[in-house]
Amino acid sequence: MIKAGIFGATGYTGCELVKILQKHPHVHVAFATSQSLAGQTLSDVYPQAPYLPLILGEAAPFEAVEVVFLCLPHAAAAETAVRALTAGVTVIDLSADFRLKDADTYANWYDKQHPAPHLLAEAVYGLTEFAREQLPGAKLVATPGCYPTSILLPLWPLLTANLPITSPIIADAKSGTSGAGRTPKAGTHFIQVHNNFAPYKIGRSHRHLPEIEQAMGWFHPDAPSLIFSPHLLPVERGILSTIYVNFSEQITLEEIRPYFTQLYANEPFVCLLPEGELTTLAHVTHSNKCVIGLTMSGSTLVITSAIDNLVKGAAGQAVQNMNVVFGIEETAGLI
Amino acid sequence: MIKAGIFGATGYTGCELVKILQKHPHVHVAFATSQSLAGQTLSDVYPQAPYLPLILGEAAPFEAVEVVFLCLPHAAAAETAVRALTAGVTVIDLSADFRLKDADTYANWYDKQHPAPHLLAEAVYGLTEFAREQLPGAKLVATPGCYPTSILLPLWPLLTANLPITSPIIADAKSGTSGAGRTPKAGTHFIQVHNNFAPYKIGRSHRHLPEIEQAMGWFHPDAPSLIFSPHLLPVERGILSTIYVNFSEQITLEEIRPYFTQLYANEPFVCLLPEGELTTLAHVTHSNKCVIGLTMSGSTLVITSAIDNLVKGAAGQAVQNMNVVFGIEETAGLI
Amino acid sequence: MIKAGIFGATGYTGCELVKILQKHPHVHVAFATSQSLAGQTLSDVYPQAPYLPLILGEAAPFEAVEVVFLCLPHAAAAETAVRALTAGVTVIDLSADFRLKDADTYANWYDKQHPAPHLLAEAVYGLTEFAREQLPGAKLVATPGCYPTSILLPLWPLLTANLPITSPIIADAKSGTSGAGRTPKAGTHFIQVHNNFAPYKIGRSHRHLPEIEQAMGWFHPDAPSLIFSPHLLPVERGILSTIYVNFSEQITLEEIRPYFTQLYANEPFVCLLPEGELTTLAHVTHSNKCVIGLTMSGSTLVITSAIDNLVKGAAGQAVQNMNVVFGIEETAGLI
Amino acid sequence: MIKAGIFGATGYTGCELVKILQKHPHVHVAFATSQSLAGQTLSDVYPQAPYLPLILGEAAPFEAVEVVFLCLPHAAAAETAVRALTAGVTVIDLSADFRLKDADTYANWYDKQHPAPHLLAEAVYGLTEFAREQLPGAKLVATPGCYPTSILLPLWPLLTANLPITSPIIADAKSGTSGAGRTPKAGTHFIQVHNNFAPYKIGRSHRHLPEIEQAMGWFHPDAPSLIFSPHLLPVERGILSTIYVNFSEQITLEEIRPYFTQLYANEPFVCLLPEGELTTLAHVTHSNKCVIGLTMSGSTLVITSAIDNLVKGAAGQAVQNMNVVFGIEETAGLI
Repeated sequence: MIKAGIFGATGYTGCELVKILQKHPHVHVAFATSQSLAGQTLSDVYPQAPYLPLILGEAAPFEAVEVVFLCLPHAAAAETAVRALTAGVTVIDLSADFRLKDADTYANWYDKQHPAPHLLAEAVYGLTEFAREQLPGAKLVATPGCYPTSILLPLWPLLTANLPITSPIIADAKSGTSGAGRTPKAGTHFIQVHNNFAPYKIGRSHRHLPEIEQAMGWFHPDAPSLIFSPHLLPVERGILSTIYVNFSEQITLEEIRPYFTQLYANEPFVCLLPEGELTTLAHVTHSNKCVIGLTMSGSTLVITSAIDNLVKGAAGQAVQNMNVVFGIEETAGLI
Repeated sequence: MIKAGIFGATGYTGCELVKILQKHPHVHVAFATSQSLAGQTLSDVYPQAPYLPLILGEAAPFEAVEVVFLCLPHAAAAETAVRALTAGVTVIDLSADFRLKDADTYANWYDKQHPAPHLLAEAVYGLTEFAREQLPGAKLVATPGCYPTSILLPLWPLLTANLPITSPIIADAKSGTSGAGRTPKAGTHFIQVHNNFAPYKIGRSHRHLPEIEQAMGWFHPDAPSLIFSPHLLPVERGILSTIYVNFSEQITLEEIRPYFTQLYANEPFVCLLPEGELTTLAHVTHSNKCVIGLTMSGSTLVITSAIDNLVKGAAGQAVQNMNVVFGIEETAGLI
Repeated sequence: MIKAGIFGATGYTGCELVKILQKHPHVHVAFATSQSLAGQTLSDVYPQAPYLPLILGEAAPFEAVEVVFLCLPHAAAAETAVRALTAGVTVIDLSADFRLKDADTYANWYDKQHPAPHLLAEAVYGLTEFAREQLPGAKLVATPGCYPTSILLPLWPLLTANLPITSPIIADAKSGTSGAGRTPKAGTHFIQVHNNFAPYKIGRSHRHLPEIEQAMGWFHPDAPSLIFSPHLLPVERGILSTIYVNFSEQITLEEIRPYFTQLYANEPFVCLLPEGELTTLAHVTHSNKCVIGLTMSGSTLVITSAIDNLVKGAAGQAVQNMNVVFGIEETAGLI
Repeated sequence: MIKAGIFGATGYTGCELVKILQKHPHVHVAFATSQSLAGQTLSDVYPQAPYLPLILGEAAPFEAVEVVFLCLPHAAAAETAVRALTAGVTVIDLSADFRLKDADTYANWYDKQHPAPHLLAEAVYGLTEFAREQLPGAKLVATPGCYPTSILLPLWPLLTANLPITSPIIADAKSGTSGAGRTPKAGTHFIQVHNNFAPYKIGRSHRHLPEIEQAMGWFHPDAPSLIFSPHLLPVERGILSTIYVNFSEQITLEEIRPYFTQLYANEPFVCLLPEGELTTLAHVTHSNKCVIGLTMSGSTLVITSAIDNLVKGAAGQAVQNMNVVFGIEETAGLI
């Protein structure tokens, strides 16, 4: 059994992670922390939390674990990562702290100097399917953001294929409200969200934009730019990104599809829908899958790509990464 | 045109009131106040607010109005009422401050000494249908609570009929989330409410209990006691109360129904459903109606009674009261 | 008073229309028909329907009215229109029958030969703001589709401005479920829609596409093509279209905005948000407004445009058109 | 591995059952049938269905299985049960066919003569906690209805305790929409359910009433009568029953609580909340738990009892019963 610790177990992501790890056949949760709710059990905090005979603590006995999962605010995560790595413990970070390779970009978008810039190069960007070679034995893994996961998985085959794509690619993304976190605020009040639908930070202003464009640059040196429009859906969980890719030449779906099947045919968590079918949230909620549909309209490819933001977009992909890091079955705990 | 002022125009109740008064054929809104949002317009605060060319102020020029509506927290409302009455302005209070006749009961349930106990006797408890005789020319009207309105309207005919009712009457009530107010808190977070349904303060612990029992005592000197169980529904607006009344003798619906038709046959806002039909929220949302269904099961009468908590349960009934106070058509602005 | 008849009063659109006309100061509803529910009143059919002392009939006494509103399935609407026009009655059609000018295009998209192709040229396409000159005295008005209204209102100023727009324009549109009609089917089952979000008929396959492109051609002879992606939202009403317009040259919002203010500054039902603000459904539900937000990102203009699909997208715009046709105040019955 | 067959795998209950059995460590699903969708896989029918490499069939090879689960309409279930029992296969029935012991009562409430009345005496009413002694080795188990499970689990300790309860007990129950089944109808249309809340078949008219009163009679020979009021909630899953029990003498919670702890302290799926806490749907959705809260108000005990209607109210309890029948760990596949 791999002994694991969880930092920040009471947010939505932390809670989902506990739920997954508790049923994981090869993991034992040795401790879980919470600053604000230390001394309580998870069941006290969330009625729906699976019972875990474990009191939330502030202390974090690194010597008791081989791996820690960080569900902490940015900056706090990096500081904890440093301490964990020093103690020889593997870090699976779910915050934004180790996603960007460039400390200045981080400072620009997250309004803070990076607490540990020397670790940025070493961190593996854990979009599992893309990073599978680098993950085994890694000491520091950055779990990608939820929006980026839903957008990058379909863009990877497309950009590496060297097709004549015109700039910009447009990603019109819609997310459930759990993505906005557990802290009550005007924007997550029931009355504000229910019966409503609202765009926010559209264009080039959301923090996930540099993360997506960074990975697009890995896929292709001359990747197009991105217009990224997040919207808030009146549902609990799930992200559906409708992505528009224009080609400067006429291309058919028959030419494009093989690039996807080549990379994803044997992936347990990426599912390509048959032609003509469109992805819905119902395809993915409560699962670690990314489901992708492809439709060609004139010279525009319309991609529908969905994930559960708390699973493949956070806790699930974190566990998937841990499985690969420790060399155990990749799907363990996830199906 | 009656010149009206609104105190506390940015809560859900205040906003609904503005919406109604703005279309009222005989009312001109002279001012609206907001402590936290003074200087803004209502449209700034709520995207959906009807445009009102009126800047929210802190000041309240009593000399400019004949009537004020108080959508303020308790205690604050009473203090403002005193100032308004002193200035000769009629007060329609939507807070709890003038609902209870006994200052000690108020102090017990609202954790504050009443700021103006000398006004309690004078205040008219504005369950309009019941209070219609006392309202014309009244200077101070207490608009009943939302739960009480949904429960008292069907109990009035029943209790005055002198039927052999056994104690306790049970009111299992379900309310939309707007009843919990506009301030974000854990209990009104979208994730907490959506996909959930939750009882709270059941039995004899909700502040509306003494208000309901006080009116039951007006209806009948030996009124039964009440068990009152509020629940929170994942909808924006509406209250449905399912009320159970047991009789110690066998009684038929044919005997009971006339007591209802006698009082309500000509009421514009109380609607008695045909036998066999049950009330739903859809009967009443966005209207000032109270819709009542009666079902006899053995020796138990099951009443389904619904209102829109923001309309007949607050702003609508407040306007209905104002109409009667000023001697204009009771339905003006409300249908 | 204008005497009006309503055909097909029990669908969502018909019901909304009754609600509006019932409060309209210059209209008297003389009759309302329903094939399936003749003999009942609207209140029987919908608990929430405002009481209308009018029995749904099959018969339609044209001699009793000056105008009829057709909330009928396509083809049935055209047949009724012919009879109404013959009887000298003005027709406000809410179906798709008179939106397309070309009978072959109609046959291709609606799988039927047009029942009255000779009327197509005469019919006024009632996007009210665009058609205001043609409407007064018109005998046959086609009310635009809901998606088209939300997309065409922001595209009109843009396309007439002769700006260097590249093809295609992308309209990623999201609609509430009332747009799918009242007939129960798997796709509108509560469990299917709630907690879900689903694209459908994306690209170039939805029936509203030719209608939108036809109007784009009126705005500019060389209008770009359109990619149109409808999605189903788990809300009752409202459409939000996020529209992406790419320019081949660098253009600023300061250059674009005047084209909008010029056309819309004095429009009662088109509202342009201040720079930096984004449109949400909450801006428009239960109103006849179209609210538009403009954001520039690189060389892409991102437009957020919302309407209530049952009001400005159907019944409200139909009444707005009737007001202009009959020369009464355009906002009558609508604010 | 126990080899199992599923009849009627495409309804909500069947789908939930497949999901549970697929992860069950000691069960292999040998076949699953569907009349309407034979030839498809479950994934074709429900996007969210877990992939099961199993084609839905009409044929049912009894020789290949030891146990069958019947998720069929009533009457059809009984006919299939007869065939299965004849073939020596254990039957876990999820329909209403073997819940009532009296064939006449069945005929009265289900409008059909019972197809196999000779089996009624033999069938075990599988409220697992109550029936644990009778289940091992049973050949025919009737899984209780969803409402009955939520109501009977708290009534069992209370009625066996011989307390001075007055008639009637009132059960005000609220259920998610999945309880209404998968067939689209007006009452389950999204627009009808969302933003609404509706009682139905209240008093003594719902089919679950005789089932509940039958078990109450087992708990105590002079059990009180029941008033049972179901309501439809705008959520997918979960039932919360608020139950009112009046005592003719003063009794304290301290006296009542031990009756509950005695029966349930060691039950894995019945959870008694600490005093003062109330049950919510969030306590139970997606779990096999029944969570019970007790509140004393005057001489009335208010019980809040919740289950997931598709799990403990159907598929989960069916599997729990199978586990006990076959002598394997009771929680297998369920936590």
